[in-house]
This record gives sequence, C-alpha cells and structure tokens, in this order.
Amino acid sequence: MADSDIESLIELMARLPGLGPRSARRAVLHLIKKRGQLLTPLADAMAKVGATARECVNCGNIGTEEICAICTDDRRATGELCVVEDVADLWAMERSKIFKGRYHVLGGTLSALDQVGPEDLRIPQIAERIDREGISEIILALGATIDGQTTAHVIADEVDGRDVRLTTLAQGVPVGGELDYLDDGTITAALNARKSF
Amino acid sequence: MADSDIESLIELMARLPGLGPRSARRAVLHLIKKRGQLLTPLADAMAKVGATARECVNCGNIGTEEICAICTDDRRATGELCVVEDVADLWAMERSKIFKGRYHVLGGTLSALDQVGPEDLRIPQIAERIDREGISEIILALGATIDGQTTAHVIADEVDGRDVRLTTLAQGVPVGGELDYLDDGTITAALNARKSF
Repeated sequence: MADSDIESLIELMARLPGLGPRSARRAVLHLIKKRGQLLTPLADAMAKVGATARECVNCGNIGTEEICAICTDDRRATGELCVVEDVADLWAMERSKIFKGRYHVLGGTLSALDQVGPEDLRIPQIAERIDREGISEIILALGATIDGQTTAHVIADEVDGRDVRLTTLAQGVPVGGELDYLDDGTITAALNARKSF
Repeated sequence: MADSDIESLIELMARLPGLGPRSARRAVLHLIKKRGQLLTPLADAMAKVGATARECVNCGNIGTEEICAICTDDRRATGELCVVEDVADLWAMERSKIFKGRYHVLGGTLSALDQVGPEDLRIPQIAERIDREGISEIILALGATIDGQTTAHVIADEVDGRDVRLTTLAQGVPVGGELDYLDDGTITAALNARKSF
C-alpha cells in the first residue's frame, strides 16, 4: 500500500502517453530510489518548463519567449517556410539538421471526423507570413495521411495567387527500408517517382 | 529545436524506465499542452514525494514516516510476515488485498554475479523481527528465479532454530493461463503439486 502522496504521483504519471499504471508504478519507484539524481531535478525541470514554456506567436513552436529562437534567428530568414502539423514534427525536422529556413506549426490537421476546420489551425497566418516575411517557397512537410493531404490542398488554395513556390516532401522507400516490408502505396509512390541511376 | 529548459526536461524524462528519447519527447510535448491539468500537478507531486518519501526503518517499505503505515497498523499484527524482494512486489501483494499481515522488503535478491551478499539485503533483520514482533509464519514471496530461490534458502538457514513456520507461494498454472503457452518448469511444478478435484 503506497502512501497517498505516492499514489497521486503514480496516478499523474500514468496519464503520460506511453505509460500505463504498471509502468507508472515502476517509474515512481525508480524516481524514489534515484531521488537526488532524478526525482528532484525532474521536479525542478518540470516546474521551470511549466512556468516558462509558451507558443511562439509567429510560428507556433514551443519556446520560452514570445517569439521563438528560430523565428528570431536572422540566419534562418532564407525565404523557405516549412509547414508542419505539430511541434514534434518540427523537432524531427530539426534533428535532421538539413533544413535552414523557418517553420509554421499548424497545430494539427484538418479533420472532418474530429470537426477540425481551417480556423482551428494556424492556416490563415501562412498568407500573412508570405506577405510579411518575403517567403519564396512553402514546403508542406505534412503526414502522408488522408487528413495531411487534405490539409495540404487547403493550404494550396489559401496561398493561390501569391508568388510562392509550393513543394511537398518526396515519397518513397525509407532509407534502410526493405521492399518486402513496405506497403503497396509506398512502393507505387516510389515507382512513380523513380529517378535515373 | 527545443529550448534548453525543454531539452533538459526531455533528457531527464528519457532516463525513466520504459521511456526512451522518442517517448520522452512525446511525453514532454503532452505535458506542455496539458500544463494546468498535468505538468504543474506532476511537478508539485514530484517535489512533495522527493521531500517526504523514505524507507520504513522496520520493513523497508516506502512511505512518508520513519515507520510505514503497514508496520504501525495494529490490525496487521497477525504474526504473519511476508518477505518480498522489492517495494514493487509489496505493492503487487497489496493490490491482491488477500494478505493481512506485515511485510519485509529485502531490497533485492542475493546474486553472486552482481556481488550482492546477505549483508547488502535486509536479511539479518528478519531474525530480529521474529524475536521482537512474535512472528509465527514467514511467507517467502520471492521470485521463482535462481537468485530468488537461493535467497529463500539463505533466509531459511538464517531463521533456523526459531519456532516459526516457513512457507512459500504455490507454483502452478496462472489464473487465465493456457497450458499451451506455459514453460515446462511451470507445468512440472503444477503437476507435482496437483490437488484432488
């Protein structure tokens, strides 16, 4: 029988994605055993992030300032704007270290099922940013899902008439991927987009 | 690119058992989105547990007092002492709500490989508790592993000569278990311990 403070900590931990009641209990025991190295620093880090984290008013990235570090970095004013669904996708792009422009985080995708319309996402702001920041290329880095592709089409309509190049990520065989394990759609896309060797 | 405070939070979260870098990132984004409902309460709960959690000096359970709630509960002075490896096992026993006695948490098992000897565990204290608390039965609820069984034998030697009944948990087919999926050892144990129907 755990103490009530420990019980509430377990209950809160179990609400994290990827953790259930069992792994939450295991995590809490681990935290208590590693109090100095892990529990206290983690509590402090959470309190700090809780007090300072905020959405960038320009792009929707999460940072600690009103305008995030990417939006204020002059070296990233390349005229390229990468549109992503979520902050997790922005982080994934940044880890690849290949994109040097700025981002625009939609905050999700359009979804008829979940009743998410363009006004629920950061879509109207894209046109504003094109006009204000001198964007020459919009890279649609959205998921290869129905909702992701619907969203891409809506954005294309939205920026239609502006002098801006619209591109999307290539589809094909993932690096390290084996054909045997790929779905038909990916193989079709990879074949259609085949390149001379 | 996440902010450095967010980066350190992710790095700390990734050190929890069951979470890797990817799931830590996902958890942190979730926390930031649910700041009021989850991030702040979790930071508070961690700080509270970090400040108050301690090992019971009597049994090794984790609580907030010098002697835990189970050890101070007079209704649990049944003369039965359940010896478990870890606090997680104590919690598992408590969830079954069937055991009404008290516990003794060893803090691990003896292990020649990891150089864990009897003096590293809470083994000598068992004999002391028998003398002090009037224990009539020791239930060895240790894992059915080599190390668990070695530990059980060492404890048996330790309490030898005292007027105390020594029992272990029954081995057999788990409730809901299918024979087809059981290992040979479990089937052998279940057959040897068969009961009249």
